[in-house]
Formats: sequence, C-alpha cells, structure tokens
Amino acid sequence: MGKVYLVGAGPGDPGLLTLKALRVLEIADVVIYDRLVSLEILALAGRARLIDGGKCQGEQERIQNQINQWLVRYASQGLNVVRLKSGDPMVFARGAEEWEYLIRRGIEVEVVPGVSSALAVPTLAGIPPTCRGVSASFAVIAGHRQNLINTDWSEYLRVDTLIVLMGVDNREYIAESLIRAGRDASQPVAFIERGSTPREHVVESSLGDVAAGKVDVEPPAIFVIGEVVRLRTRLAKARGEALHAG
Amino acid sequence: MGKVYLVGAGPGDPGLLTLKALRVLEIADVVIYDRLVSLEILALAGRARLIDGGKCQGEQERIQNQINQWLVRYASQGLNVVRLKSGDPMVFARGAEEWEYLIRRGIEVEVVPGVSSALAVPTLAGIPPTCRGVSASFAVIAGHRQNLINTDWSEYLRVDTLIVLMGVDNREYIAESLIRAGRDASQPVAFIERGSTPREHVVESSLGDVAAGKVDVEPPAIFVIGEVVRLRTRLAKARGEALHAG
Repeated sequence: MGKVYLVGAGPGDPGLLTLKALRVLEIADVVIYDRLVSLEILALAGRARLIDGGKCQGEQERIQNQINQWLVRYASQGLNVVRLKSGDPMVFARGAEEWEYLIRRGIEVEVVPGVSSALAVPTLAGIPPTCRGVSASFAVIAGHRQNLINTDWSEYLRVDTLIVLMGVDNREYIAESLIRAGRDASQPVAFIERGSTPREHVVESSLGDVAAGKVDVEPPAIFVIGEVVRLRTRLAKARGEALHAG
Repeated sequence: MGKVYLVGAGPGDPGLLTLKALRVLEIADVVIYDRLVSLEILALAGRARLIDGGKCQGEQERIQNQINQWLVRYASQGLNVVRLKSGDPMVFARGAEEWEYLIRRGIEVEVVPGVSSALAVPTLAGIPPTCRGVSASFAVIAGHRQNLINTDWSEYLRVDTLIVLMGVDNREYIAESLIRAGRDASQPVAFIERGSTPREHVVESSLGDVAAGKVDVEPPAIFVIGEVVRLRTRLAKARGEALHAG
C-alpha cells in the first residue's frame, strides 16, 4: 500500500515551500495539484506524473469525486501520492474532507502543513495580520456565496483584521454586510493579487468604496480589511524618509 | 550596510522550515532567536553567532529594546542578521514592530513568512482549522491578560474555530468569558503541547470543564475551541475501523 501526502505549497514563491514538502515532491510518483500551484513548484516534482486537479466552476463535486478516486487508486497501487494544494492544505481547501475520506478507506495519510496564503500574502504586501497597538486578533473566512449567506456579520465587527479568501466576486456584498453590521465605512482595505510573486499587485481602498462598487480587481486576490492596512503606507513612507535622510 | 531577515521558524518540526528560511540561516552572521525555536533548527545556522532573545516574564520591554539595538548594531556592521521567531513572524511576535523600527532607521528588511503554529499545530493533532460542514471560519487571538480584558467575547460567539495562543494561564477566564457570552459549555476544546514534534501531547476537554478549573495543562500550549476538535476522535476511530476491516 502506498501513502498520500496532503501538502501545502505555500502562497506561490517556491522559496516558501517547506523542506518536508520538497522532500515528498522528490519521492512522489504522482502529484495531483490545484489550479493555484505555480509551475516552478511543480517542476520540483522531478519524476512524478502530474495530474491537474484544478476545480472548474460549477462542476466542483464531480471533480472532487474524481480526485478522491485518483488518490485511492494510486495509493492502492503502492505509489507515493502527493496531493498539492496552494497555501495550507487545511485552510478552505477540502483538505480535511480528503483526509477523512482516505483514512476511512485504510490509506495512510501524512499531512504537511504549508505557509498559509491568508497570512503570508498580506504580510509580504506590508500588511501583517497582527501588530501591537493596531491588531490583536484576526479572522479568516471563505468568500464563497454559500458561506456568506450563512454568516452573521456582527461576529466580525470587532475582530481587528478580517482576511477573506476567494471573496473578490462577492466583495461588494461583503463590504456592504460589514458596514450594515456596524463596521466603519472609512476602514482601509486591500486586495492583493499574485501575492508573494514578482507580479504582486495591490489595490488599496476603503470599505465604503468597495461597497459602492468603485474598486476593480480580478480574482484570485486576498481581501484584507482593517486598520493594519495603513501599515503598508507607513512602512513605505518610513523607507522613503530613511533613504532621504541617509 | 547589512540586512535583517525577519524569519518564521515554523511550529517546531525542522521539516516545516521553508527553503528560504534555511537559505538565510545558512548565510547568517548573527541569529537572534526566540525561546520557542528548537535546537535542531538553530543547528542549521552553521557559522552564525547565536543570541538568545527569549523574553522572560516581566521584563519584556527591556529585552525588546535590547533586541532592537542588537538588530540595528549588527546590520550597521554590514552583517546578515536573522531574527528567528517560532511559527510565523507576524502572528503575535512583535514582528511588525521590529519591522517598522528597522525601516525607520534605514535598515533593509526582508520578511520570510513561516508555517504558523496557530494553524499547523492543531492540524497535526488531527484538528484542521477549517472543515466543510463543520468549520467555515476561524479566528486567532493572543491569550495575554492585557489583550483579554479588552476583548468583547460576543465577537467570538459564532466564529466556528477559535484558536488562542499564549492562553494557557488564562484558560479558565477565557472559557468562562466565552460561556458567559453565549458559547455552549459542552463545546469541545483541546490543548496541544509541543505540537508538531515527537513529544506532542494533547488534552481534550470541554469549555465547561475548562471554566470549572478541571483541566491541567502546562504552557506553552495551543488552545483550540470548536466542533472541529471532534474530528480528531473521528479520524482516530476511522483509522482503527479501517485497520480492523483490513
């Protein structure tokens, strides 16, 4: 019997892969990867067969069933199977479901946590999730429609930093809901596209402007809401002044 | 002029260090590390001078000032300085403060995000932060006394999974506050000591029993609250049944 490794690939930069993730990619016979995993990272899986497990809109259940079947089939053939997910495998990636599915079928599973995009992408854009005196708590939610309609937005009223994954398409609804629950419309927000890569692009705005439909941004991007967004400008300004003074 | 790398060492297992963290440890002249960073990881900093920056209770401000001075001094001497923190450097570790302090003094800073203990330690104990149908959101807070007294606990009433770092000493207060705000006393909780290492120890209980002072646990440990804690038993049971059936 083979083994399935549920592995986080980190936010995109191959340098943010863990040592253990590299080790299992090097011994992998099969790698089933998600859409957001970069080519540079896939290139590290030297001899493995690569299978695109990217889920298209609207047919997620069918593709998930297919992935589950592949995982069981290849592991049963005695192969080392890597299930490679962007970020961390247990943050909104159906990692827990795949884990339980495999365990129930008697397949050995090893989880290799990754650097979560939810935390690292804002940080690398100059927006750390916590900062003494500015943010002492953060929450991470999935911005899927089915999740949002079940959300009581008042629960996020006082969490200092709110990080929304997969929320670009529903950004107006999210911003409106937060403002309606009582969060200040002037609060700064940022959307970070292609975070951690040389092609990073950051759009800064306010909750009110997002709610009013004034912000153009393309998915996938990470949506950060909170005063800590101002640190990005503060750091850039301090850097400029220090350079000038030097 | 040298450079300061603000680096996350991950939760403890050296395999969860990132490739970039290993690379900067290998070129480091000086490593200033936190108390929770393991010896195996420090051993990877081959030629560097190692400085213990562990903060003792009650003298945090003095030690933080000392660390800031060291960072500036060694970088100004043209050295490669690694500031090594356990987990991720921007999750409750004063990473953001050190970043801004250094930038203001004209020192180049590179942040290397790490695998956050807040997410990876529960996962490796069988408690993923999110799981479809069980947990669609999570929040992370610091369990320091000064932070807790400013917390409105009702904000965490409906966040599915609540992860408290540095909260062992205040566990009764935290559990009581959550129950008083309306969270169910029967909700399962877990404390994970030495997570991600071979010496991991997990204590499972309920919010009510923690509030009643019935749970013995030693800091440091990660305190997880939410239905997703039940997955740990479910996975263990499924593993046992699958082994039996096979």
